[in-house]
Amino acid sequence: MSSSALLDKLINSLQTMPGVGPVTASRIAFALLDKKRAQGLEMAETIKQALTNISSCPGCHNYSDSEGVECEICACASRRESGVLCVVETPSDVQAIEDSKSFNGTYFVLHGHLSPIDGIGAKELGLDVLFEKIVNNHYKEVILALSQTIEGNATSSFIANFCKRHDIIVSKIASGVPVGGELMSVDQNTLAMSLNYRRPL
Amino acid sequence: MSSSALLDKLINSLQTMPGVGPVTASRIAFALLDKKRAQGLEMAETIKQALTNISSCPGCHNYSDSEGVECEICACASRRESGVLCVVETPSDVQAIEDSKSFNGTYFVLHGHLSPIDGIGAKELGLDVLFEKIVNNHYKEVILALSQTIEGNATSSFIANFCKRHDIIVSKIASGVPVGGELMSVDQNTLAMSLNYRRPL
Repeated sequence: MSSSALLDKLINSLQTMPGVGPVTASRIAFALLDKKRAQGLEMAETIKQALTNISSCPGCHNYSDSEGVECEICACASRRESGVLCVVETPSDVQAIEDSKSFNGTYFVLHGHLSPIDGIGAKELGLDVLFEKIVNNHYKEVILALSQTIEGNATSSFIANFCKRHDIIVSKIASGVPVGGELMSVDQNTLAMSLNYRRPL
Repeated sequence: MSSSALLDKLINSLQTMPGVGPVTASRIAFALLDKKRAQGLEMAETIKQALTNISSCPGCHNYSDSEGVECEICACASRRESGVLCVVETPSDVQAIEDSKSFNGTYFVLHGHLSPIDGIGAKELGLDVLFEKIVNNHYKEVILALSQTIEGNATSSFIANFCKRHDIIVSKIASGVPVGGELMSVDQNTLAMSLNYRRPL
């Protein structure tokens, strides 16, 4: 028996979040109720605002603050002028690359990859929009930063072929041993890739 | 650079929850935005309702659905009639005991323990309310289920002394080797307790 039906509802509801099961949800619920009511209410308001307003950037299909408004990366002149476009699968990939502080161009988010078995072809993935953007913007280079999976690689090849046909420089991010990684703990395929694509010193 | 200031605000705000750092918060934010907008909005509404309404039960100081309303456990006649009171430190302790399905009486939640160094004496902890409740309700037994810490044990002794002075049966939950636990992985103090308080077979 629980002391409060509303508390049960809260614990159930918190499990909407990925990685939050009954135990974590209880811990969060009690922490918010015991010590963080004001911050919890603020968080609920922020979640509501974000989920209601955050929309898709018309330029890159990444998240932007509101409907029809360009995202902050597309709106930045110096980034647009770099003339380099990086194609990724998800908005979280954009964030990962931004966190690495090693890219200063603009992005295009596919929100997936080619997957004929699920009925996702070039059109469903919006590749026509990407191709139009590539042709119209005369990019100096298109960087493909898609997942190193069969579907990701197929999607990369498809986009690369288009770029080559239009004489646009296209590249793919490197595969290999992670920085700080030991050879022993790296899987066979990654090690094979890092040998095949070794670079002269 | 982030694509959306509102997304940044969401990721920061989610870190209000215990155990949620920047990486987990990003994962949650993207999952809610990508696939669970409706459920996320529902969750935000539930958090708001719960943090606004959940209040303290006048009977046991556990959480109840709203101000001045008894919690569901205190409101249950069969539990009140059992005549057994279990004293715990926190509402999550109540939930843990309820989950074990091995207790059918009512509770009293102290929301802490005696801690003279922090200025928390008998009055601050509301022990006068507990003592009044114990005397007025003629309990058959008072079970102390407080933490097995120095402060928890001091609080237990304080309550036990009161009960003994008023000829009320008082007991303390057992300490020992956890069920399914191996002796090797149990700490020395627990093992010493389990030997001292061995029971005849």
